[in-house]
Amino acid sequence: MNRPSGRAANQLRPVKITRQYTKHAEGSVLIEFGDTKVLCNASVSESVPSFLRGSGKGWVTAEYGMLPRSTNSRMRREAAAGKQGGRTVEIQRLIGRSLRAAVDLEALGEVSITIDCDVIQADGGTRTASITGACVALADALNALVAKGTIKSNPMTCMIGAVSVGIYEGEVVLDLDYPEDSAAETDMNVVMTSEGGFVEVQGTAEAAPFSADELNGMLASAKAGIEELFALQQAALAEG
Amino acid sequence: MNRPSGRAANQLRPVKITRQYTKHAEGSVLIEFGDTKVLCNASVSESVPSFLRGSGKGWVTAEYGMLPRSTNSRMRREAAAGKQGGRTVEIQRLIGRSLRAAVDLEALGEVSITIDCDVIQADGGTRTASITGACVALADALNALVAKGTIKSNPMTCMIGAVSVGIYEGEVVLDLDYPEDSAAETDMNVVMTSEGGFVEVQGTAEAAPFSADELNGMLASAKAGIEELFALQQAALAEG
Amino acid sequence: MNRPSGRAANQLRPVKITRQYTKHAEGSVLIEFGDTKVLCNASVSESVPSFLRGSGKGWVTAEYGMLPRSTNSRMRREAAAGKQGGRTVEIQRLIGRSLRAAVDLEALGEVSITIDCDVIQADGGTRTASITGACVALADALNALVAKGTIKSNPMTCMIGAVSVGIYEGEVVLDLDYPEDSAAETDMNVVMTSEGGFVEVQGTAEAAPFSADELNGMLASAKAGIEELFALQQAALAEG
Amino acid sequence: MNRPSGRAANQLRPVKITRQYTKHAEGSVLIEFGDTKVLCNASVSESVPSFLRGSGKGWVTAEYGMLPRSTNSRMRREAAAGKQGGRTVEIQRLIGRSLRAAVDLEALGEVSITIDCDVIQADGGTRTASITGACVALADALNALVAKGTIKSNPMTCMIGAVSVGIYEGEVVLDLDYPEDSAAETDMNVVMTSEGGFVEVQGTAEAAPFSADELNGMLASAKAGIEELFALQQAALAEG
Amino acid sequence: MNRPSGRAANQLRPVKITRQYTKHAEGSVLIEFGDTKVLCNASVSESVPSFLRGSGKGWVTAEYGMLPRSTNSRMRREAAAGKQGGRTVEIQRLIGRSLRAAVDLEALGEVSITIDCDVIQADGGTRTASITGACVALADALNALVAKGTIKSNPMTCMIGAVSVGIYEGEVVLDLDYPEDSAAETDMNVVMTSEGGFVEVQGTAEAAPFSADELNGMLASAKAGIEELFALQQAALAEG
Amino acid sequence: MNRPSGRAANQLRPVKITRQYTKHAEGSVLIEFGDTKVLCNASVSESVPSFLRGSGKGWVTAEYGMLPRSTNSRMRREAAAGKQGGRTVEIQRLIGRSLRAAVDLEALGEVSITIDCDVIQADGGTRTASITGACVALADALNALVAKGTIKSNPMTCMIGAVSVGIYEGEVVLDLDYPEDSAAETDMNVVMTSEGGFVEVQGTAEAAPFSADELNGMLASAKAGIEELFALQQAALAEG
Repeated sequence: MNRPSGRAANQLRPVKITRQYTKHAEGSVLIEFGDTKVLCNASVSESVPSFLRGSGKGWVTAEYGMLPRSTNSRMRREAAAGKQGGRTVEIQRLIGRSLRAAVDLEALGEVSITIDCDVIQADGGTRTASITGACVALADALNALVAKGTIKSNPMTCMIGAVSVGIYEGEVVLDLDYPEDSAAETDMNVVMTSEGGFVEVQGTAEAAPFSADELNGMLASAKAGIEELFALQQAALAEG
Repeated sequence: MNRPSGRAANQLRPVKITRQYTKHAEGSVLIEFGDTKVLCNASVSESVPSFLRGSGKGWVTAEYGMLPRSTNSRMRREAAAGKQGGRTVEIQRLIGRSLRAAVDLEALGEVSITIDCDVIQADGGTRTASITGACVALADALNALVAKGTIKSNPMTCMIGAVSVGIYEGEVVLDLDYPEDSAAETDMNVVMTSEGGFVEVQGTAEAAPFSADELNGMLASAKAGIEELFALQQAALAEG
Repeated sequence: MNRPSGRAANQLRPVKITRQYTKHAEGSVLIEFGDTKVLCNASVSESVPSFLRGSGKGWVTAEYGMLPRSTNSRMRREAAAGKQGGRTVEIQRLIGRSLRAAVDLEALGEVSITIDCDVIQADGGTRTASITGACVALADALNALVAKGTIKSNPMTCMIGAVSVGIYEGEVVLDLDYPEDSAAETDMNVVMTSEGGFVEVQGTAEAAPFSADELNGMLASAKAGIEELFALQQAALAEG
Repeated sequence: MNRPSGRAANQLRPVKITRQYTKHAEGSVLIEFGDTKVLCNASVSESVPSFLRGSGKGWVTAEYGMLPRSTNSRMRREAAAGKQGGRTVEIQRLIGRSLRAAVDLEALGEVSITIDCDVIQADGGTRTASITGACVALADALNALVAKGTIKSNPMTCMIGAVSVGIYEGEVVLDLDYPEDSAAETDMNVVMTSEGGFVEVQGTAEAAPFSADELNGMLASAKAGIEELFALQQAALAEG
Repeated sequence: MNRPSGRAANQLRPVKITRQYTKHAEGSVLIEFGDTKVLCNASVSESVPSFLRGSGKGWVTAEYGMLPRSTNSRMRREAAAGKQGGRTVEIQRLIGRSLRAAVDLEALGEVSITIDCDVIQADGGTRTASITGACVALADALNALVAKGTIKSNPMTCMIGAVSVGIYEGEVVLDLDYPEDSAAETDMNVVMTSEGGFVEVQGTAEAAPFSADELNGMLASAKAGIEELFALQQAALAEG
Repeated sequence: MNRPSGRAANQLRPVKITRQYTKHAEGSVLIEFGDTKVLCNASVSESVPSFLRGSGKGWVTAEYGMLPRSTNSRMRREAAAGKQGGRTVEIQRLIGRSLRAAVDLEALGEVSITIDCDVIQADGGTRTASITGACVALADALNALVAKGTIKSNPMTCMIGAVSVGIYEGEVVLDLDYPEDSAAETDMNVVMTSEGGFVEVQGTAEAAPFSADELNGMLASAKAGIEELFALQQAALAEG
């Protein structure tokens, strides 16, 4: 098998994590998975949604957007269309759920963190890049809260990483770019904690159903890839 | 382990499939998974969305809704709120993708089938009941097209079934009702073809990440449950 | 004159009232006027709209919807369209006003009842079936409030029934089904109290204006029909 | 009985009809029922809604609005709120239906007339003033089409007039102003053709149900009042 | 140069200011600039937007709308379209900013004034007519607050006037009507205080860029025109 | 006078123009005015809005957005709010008008260019940075159309530059950053062609009205600043 990208089956694209990318956000990370570039800005608010008021618990949520010309042909601006599309809503719910798996919301207290993941340039894998970058921005924002004295210690219990994996010409391939994703038989997004557990597994048969063996092959490849991402996250956070 | 419902770990709720439930739709199925009741109406339109016009291919899509008081406390009516919520959008996209995996869209020709899945009463598992019932409604609608002469033969290549599965007190349980779902550590929805392949696998850690072993345990339980559903679908369609 | 339905001019369709149709709502009634089937769920909220806060008075309101394929050809889902159509708004305002005529809102206290009337299958007369069924659901919900001790006695002062009546081929006909309604010269909806007073009279000339005599003929026929409906409501409530 | 307005029970407010009130519309009428002032502008479009394309038939429709401060306390602007309220929708549907009863839509041909009824100042009876004024604007717009040669003769088959009537302190009163309307037990809007038929009868019990006798008393009073309105319409059109 | 309107280059259209035009608003002014007619209603609310609560400061804001047939061809009603267009939003922001320049918001206290500017008939210059008329309505509303004792003295520090000016066939022309505006090379709206300062200067090249000299010529013409408007405002207010 | 930024009164912030910033757009420019960073992506569509179809003329338009955390405190995402705010609409209309002044739309033919200006980081002057950067992106997109053979020659007749200017402590200052803008008495945005004409002049008194002399002082400062911007645009385009 020759992947369209020429990469080895289990090879990630070059991943780059740039912290403090913008100046206003409490955590601001530009993450690049090859040509996919997502800006992840974490904002802190010392209040919580109404369903948590008085509970002593905090909240972590995400919003996702694509710049209209982040893609090959221009997409309609969602603000002009007057609503977020189904894919947008699905992705931002996934990002939020994934990040909440890393935070002890009781230890956070009644504080909300919103992570805006805005795709500057898209080439496949924007949701997994978003999760991986957002986790670093979240760490920075929570560290800022510790530094400021709002909370005593960082309530993150682990890091979160995510990658896509698929079946292309019958074989498992890691971190699909857009041409690969369009041609894959199956596409799966895997989200894991740095302690090795699965947080989300979302596999979708595109051209043909997949078997349990294929699913396990994809999970193994994703696990190896996400471990590389954890190392890159750690290296980025160590630079601080 | 004692499930809240008292069922065995691998036991489905009583499932009932009633065809021709309403009189106008080309396919109309009331599916019951215990106290969860979903009305699945398939409507045929001899036109396709603009992105398929002139392609010779057909389309299958789904819409999902919950009656405001299908749930324990009344939800706001989405038509009055002026938009469909994120969960609704996510579910109807899942139903549509799942059903398309069963249909040869080229053989269908430029015809659209819309399956409306409306939850009359909710008690957990509405999305998997919707998929399972919608597939029967789709079969009826396509058979009606054959009977009418619009298409020569039914373009379904298999049946589709779906069930939820989870980890409750550390063990795999099948087909969670609402109290079980609220208490589960992990919740997974599995969609399969009657030929044994996976179409969708969506696992979400609620309280704690899950391992590959747990995931495989859930898949095995789901597979067995979905095989029971296929038998029930076949029995219902045989009654014709 | 031969009505399309073959019924006598003053003959109602078979009417069936099923209480406790769903399990969550405080009052849940499926009402059938022939092939027209409407699910009426009453929900109790121990709060009132802002214009009544602090007034000591309660509120009764209604929402109405049609399942997309309750009708002969599929209608667009209002939640997907992003708003309720004019006909929907008009009908739910009518249902709400009609029901409020039966309740002593001061005796109710600061409690709101919302009746959701969702049309499962439509064959003419959905608004009059909704009002007639909603009144039973409202009675059940108020009785539940009495049983629970929230209020001392049921604040309903009467029952409410409604029927449509029209002029077809120059003669008054009662309870028009869809084919009859489409062919009628005039269509009128009449809402009455069980004490014999009119709550709403809405007559619309479709093909030709109507005279005062015709109007009185329609009122008389409606009155007789609604009396039959009151008997059916009483019988249903007596089963309790 | 002393009406709040001091008028006799069967006395209309001073009614004034001013044609050519604005310069752009094909028909432009300011109608005043006492302090209620509504501007009715008829616009002609040589096209029809999609459901009539190719049918050879025309269409007449209406839109209704209130200026935010036409009322005693400022109402929210519907354009800013992002939707038309239920009352607005109900009224504009009533105006449109009423006017269509006066026009032979086949004779009109594939032409649409939209009548915008905008309330400049409100003091009760805005819907009946709108219908009465809109009919004059419609006549002017249709005459303009005849003058222009688009149609050979005016396709109006009659004039349409409307008035409100109610029960106040047990007696029938005609053409209620806002204080009277607020205090009335029953409120009814009656729309008639100049040939003496009823087009719409919409009676609503506000404080107490009404009897058939009361309804007939209201109809008789309305009929006399509308006959006065027809004379005023004719006088206004004769001035041309 | 011959202006399409036949007016001298520096000649305003006939301007007419009618106070107390409607009966409910605290300030109600119909302003006419030739055939442009705008109804400006000022409404008082003894509360302020949330960003000012507790600040001790008041607020002045404006909303703008055009009746659908105020223009030569009917525009879609914004309430029906479900949103205010870009031009509407731009104009109402301009009116609000302009009026706030005339009011000492601290002296006003926590009171809001909303000025609704609704165009009854449009013939160019609706935004400048709106500002000029709204200022008079604002003065009346503030005087009413003084009369009522809510505030001790009128917090207006000056009057505000506005006019359009343009370059037509190379020459500066004042107060363009619609045909002139459509043909002008440049269009500028100028808002001034009665003390001679500029509040807003918005010049837009339509057909060709303009020079600093042309801009200064336009400013001079606008200043002279606005001085005439101040005299007319004073005369109108003196009539009281 | 000491400007908050420490710059000389007539000194621009460091301006940086980066072309080909993203890979999909026909023109893609990141423009930086100090800490203000705007991504300007030009997209080509070989169709025109309906009002130009068949006219032989092209169209240039713009959309503007701010990433939610481009600002000091997070703003609500407009796509989630369901509409673009008034300020957004006003700015994108200004950008579009300004750019159209540089293009011979007849020479362009029936082609549309949309320039998306998305603010990555905001520190005052986003609208003037957007216009200045968008003009370079537009030039690149039009050159690409020439290279592709769609049009014979580039239909731009000049370049467009824009800068803000204000009165701060009584003196004219150029290119205000956010703290300066917040403290200025007057704020003016000036858009010019490279041939020296004014395209837009929008001056707003914030704290105090301004005089004709102040306006002329601001225009002169803006003109000098924009000339610097034209040189930077030329240098950037020369690199290509």
